[in-house]
Formats: sequence, C-alpha cells, structure tokens
Amino acid sequence: MIAKSQNKYYSLYERERKKIETKLEQSLKNREPKSLYSPSYYVIKGGGKRLRPLLVLFSVKAAGGKFSQAYNAAVAVELLHNFTLVHDDIMDNADKRRNLPTLHNKYDLSTAILSGDSLLSIAYESLLKDLSTSNLHNGNNSKAIINSFNKGLIEVCEGQSLDKEFELKVNVTINDYLIMIQKKTAAMMEMCCNIGALLGGGTKKEINALTKFGKNIGIAFQIQDDLLDIVGNENEFGKFVGGDLIEGKKTYLFLTALNKAKGSHKKDLLNVIKNKGIKKNQIKKYKSIYETLNVIEESKAEISKYTAKALSSIKNLRSKNDRDIFYWLADSLIKRIR
Amino acid sequence: MIAKSQNKYYSLYERERKKIETKLEQSLKNREPKSLYSPSYYVIKGGGKRLRPLLVLFSVKAAGGKFSQAYNAAVAVELLHNFTLVHDDIMDNADKRRNLPTLHNKYDLSTAILSGDSLLSIAYESLLKDLSTSNLHNGNNSKAIINSFNKGLIEVCEGQSLDKEFELKVNVTINDYLIMIQKKTAAMMEMCCNIGALLGGGTKKEINALTKFGKNIGIAFQIQDDLLDIVGNENEFGKFVGGDLIEGKKTYLFLTALNKAKGSHKKDLLNVIKNKGIKKNQIKKYKSIYETLNVIEESKAEISKYTAKALSSIKNLRSKNDRDIFYWLADSLIKRIR
Repeated sequence: MIAKSQNKYYSLYERERKKIETKLEQSLKNREPKSLYSPSYYVIKGGGKRLRPLLVLFSVKAAGGKFSQAYNAAVAVELLHNFTLVHDDIMDNADKRRNLPTLHNKYDLSTAILSGDSLLSIAYESLLKDLSTSNLHNGNNSKAIINSFNKGLIEVCEGQSLDKEFELKVNVTINDYLIMIQKKTAAMMEMCCNIGALLGGGTKKEINALTKFGKNIGIAFQIQDDLLDIVGNENEFGKFVGGDLIEGKKTYLFLTALNKAKGSHKKDLLNVIKNKGIKKNQIKKYKSIYETLNVIEESKAEISKYTAKALSSIKNLRSKNDRDIFYWLADSLIKRIR
Repeated sequence: MIAKSQNKYYSLYERERKKIETKLEQSLKNREPKSLYSPSYYVIKGGGKRLRPLLVLFSVKAAGGKFSQAYNAAVAVELLHNFTLVHDDIMDNADKRRNLPTLHNKYDLSTAILSGDSLLSIAYESLLKDLSTSNLHNGNNSKAIINSFNKGLIEVCEGQSLDKEFELKVNVTINDYLIMIQKKTAAMMEMCCNIGALLGGGTKKEINALTKFGKNIGIAFQIQDDLLDIVGNENEFGKFVGGDLIEGKKTYLFLTALNKAKGSHKKDLLNVIKNKGIKKNQIKKYKSIYETLNVIEESKAEISKYTAKALSSIKNLRSKNDRDIFYWLADSLIKRIR
C-alpha cells in the first residue's frame, strides 16, 4: 500500500484510486449469470493499490491528454491484472490474497478458472470502449493500444510460465530472473504507461519515455516485492514474512545470496533448492545469512538503480507537475511496506 | 468429423482445412518459453473439424471477399475455441479429448490453465494481424470485428458458467438449456460468421444473414452433439457413448424426456439428477426410455428446424456457389457421426 501523506500527489492518487474502485465495481455489476460474475466481483472488492490503472491515468496526462480519456483503459488493465492473480493463485496453491481467501479457496477450482477467464474478457470489453469514444489523433493509435494490451497479456503468460519453470530448475541465474520479472511484472507496467501515452496522443518521444518509465519502475517494483518478503512487517504486509523462502522461491535476494555464498552458507542455500523450501523456524537463520552476505543492501541498491533509470527517462516530459507525480509515485513505491 | 465424399465442396473444405492446420501450427511454433508453448502446440496438433475457421472463410467469401483476407482471423477463432476446450476439460475432469490425454492429464493443472490463457492471447494476436493488413472498406469494421470476437469470448464464459450451474440445479427447463447453448456453442459460431462477413466487407443485409446462419447452425450443432452421445458409433465418435448420461448432464434429450415422462419413466429420469448420473450398465435402459418417449426423433426434428432456420437466412446471398457451400456444410453437419 502506498503510505498516507499530506502530499498533494497522494491526494490526487487517492481521489483517482477511489474513482477507479467505483468504475471497477460498475464494470462487473448487473451482469448475468451471477455464478460467474459474483466471484469476479469478490476478487475486485478485495482491493489493492490500483497501481496499474494509476499508471495509465498519470501517463495519459503526461502525454498531453486528460484522465477522462482513459478511465476505461485504466479499468481494463486492473481487470487484466486481477485475471492473472486469480489464475496464479491457483497455480501457486495460495490460500490467501490481501488477507482474504483466494477465489479457488472460497469457491472452487472451476469457478476460479472461469471467473479468471471472464475478468480477462471484461478487460478487453472495457479497453475497446475507450478506443471507440476517445478523441484519438488518428485511428492507428487504436491498433497500437490494443496491440500493446495484448502484448502485455502474452508476456505475463510467458513470465508466469518461466516462474513456474524456475521452481523446478536448479541453475537459475540472476539474468534468467531479470528476464522472468520483465515479462511477469514489468511488461504489464510498461504496457500501462504505453497505453496511457498512446491514449493521451503523446509524441513518439513522450510515448517512448513513458514506456521506459513503466518498464524500469516495474523491475524495481518486483525486486522491492522480493525484499519486502524479508524485511516487511508481517501485520502490514498482509502476507507471511519469509514466505518466499518457505516456498523455495528463487527471488532476487535468494539468487544474489547464492551467487555470493561460499562454504556453509552455500550449502545452506543449496539446501533450500534441494528441499524445495525451508521450515518456518529456519527463517531467522536465512535472514541472517542474507544480512551477512549483504544481500539486503545490494537489493536496495538494485531497486534504486532501476528507479533512477525509470526517472531519468521522463526528465524531459513537458510539464513539471507531471514529472513530479512520477517522482512522488516512484518514491512512494520504494518506501512502501507491502 | 465431416464425412468424406466426392463432393466438390468437400474438396474445398479439405483443402482449406489443411491450410488452416499449417497456419495454426505456425502460429505457435518458434515461441519461447517451450514450457508454455509446447503444451499449446500439443492441443492444436490434436486435430478437430476446424469448423469454426471454415465458417470464417466461407463467410468472408459469401460477403464478397477472399479467403486470403481472413486466414489470421480463422486461426484466431480456432485458437479461442481450443482455449475453451482446455479450460472446460479441467472443469469437467475430462481425461481424454479426441482420443488423446487432455492437457491437464498429460501435463498438470498449472500448465493447462496457463497454456489455455496463452492460446487466448495468441488468438487475439492473430486476429489483430488481419485487422492491420486486410483491405477493409473502412476502419470502423476493425472495431466491429474485435468487438464481435470479444463478445464471443464473454458469451462462451457465461455459457460455460451456466452449464456448470445446471449440473447442480434440479429444475432446468428446455428454455434454460437453449439459452445456455446459445452462449456456450452458438455464440462462437455466430461470431465466426459475423467476423467473416465483416472482413469480407459485406452489406448490412449480408452481415445479418450470415450472422443468423452462424447462430442457428450453432444451436443445431449442439443438439446434434447431444444426440450423438446416444446414437453415435463408439469407435467413430471418439468418446464414450452414453457419457452424458453417466455424468448426469442435462442435455436436450434428457430435458425433453423429463418433460414428457410419466410414472416409472419420470422416476427413472429424476434418479439421474438425484444420483448425479447413471452407471455404465444402465445406458441401454435409458436409451430405451428415450426411444419409448420418442425423444430421439424429436431431437432430430429440432436439429432440422434450426438447420432450416439457418439456411433460410442465407437464401438471398449473391452467389449460388456460396449458398451451396453452406447448404453442403449444413447437410454434412447433420450427417456427421462425431
């Protein structure tokens, strides 16, 4: 969650986030059959940062457009994101999401598969609405927008497949990991900024700048997510601290530690792979290995590096105010606690 | 399968079906990661009638266009169809499809969910290709085409949800059933003809005529599917005869029988619902109940009714040859044995 503050950008974020909440709910209300749409509605009511729709909105503005041109697209990217969460939760056997039972846990497997599919179908429907109503500079942007959205979908599937592949693979490099998170996490944020910039009718330069911002902030966001698994506050984070270690996930921290470790540390880390995870009472031990190997500080440095990369790409945006929104957002994401 | 014949339309169907096979394979070849695309490729190699892509091609031609304008759209509808099969097979706990292990059976649940999702993402990619290259009369058709495709996706999800709902519901009427199959089966065929007609640049009348053809032939096709479960030849049909009864599915035949039955027949049929299916050794008994109640003949009449409805809508198509293709296709579907 993005931390509360008196900041004017936080107020803007909150105001727009609330609008998105309402529009998300409206996108699923009054649809039949209830057996399909009630579960989807439950997922959407579960909340979330709504970061992806906000990226669309801030990008449309930075490219010279208005928020009002992009609400349907903003709803579309969040529905697409939730489609991935529902299906990923099945694949990861996750019981909870945002402190609530996951969909397959609350209902059943069939309902979760189908409601996931349905969220995706409504995502496209919402996106297509903006394409028919917004005052685009020319019809070609419509194609670019829908191509971009679809590319995001293709990449998120590929990224999830790599992620599942890595669970069974012994020799995953940091480079493999970066390719995976670019597809699984960053491609979607890249797409959000790209679509926003296209809807806003930005110049080629602006579109490229915003798209790069999305990609790099997405990489930073995912490494931060990996970091929060270790340094996060259990109550605030909404999921178990050390959960990635328990599941034996090959996170940025884990792979960096494995790269640097020697002797007994190396053996301990290889045991995580061998045993496909650790026990709950071993978390402290592994956290201390990470600390000894300076992995936590190195991860923070990597997050800063990608955040700086993201921010440098937008330094020539036309309005200072629009740049500042992204500076504030990047800063809030680094400081976030879940 | 459509029965072999010396008919010139059968030769055309076969020629185009083979082209579609190649293009379907190409759409998934040389993609990474293999962990995602090999399973999808396996599904596509499993074969099928390729009825939906052929509906696209015949419709583009009937609307005044050329096959070459619609190959990508034809591939798209078949990929979309296979996405639904992969996810439906999970939900139905089906072990086999077209005499081969289903995807979740050959690989695992996660692979099947994700490869299904991916088939859908590549379907959109393929559709979008035709939208950027075909010589459309105007850009608006592009939006109509993608809207139509997406409407097909939404309806097939809703139809599958109703189908799952009916498994648990006691009082399903024939009308409920017709609404369900319109969404689950007919909407997709309707969409195929609609997209073909739009790509071919047909007049409003032609588009409407072909779209109605798709819808009604889709309803006939599904009732025929229900009928084949009872009268089909086990070896040819590729799945178990009486399988719908064993699973307690509320097919057109079952609901019609339930409607007409009295006394002991009624009790026997209500037992199917109560026990959520029958035993294999009871199939003969239930087939004989269907025969006594004249349900098989009534189903055939219903199939003929919807087929006639489909054909009457296209009687004013500009070319006799194009009309004859549809007459041949409708006739072949009625005569099909699986």
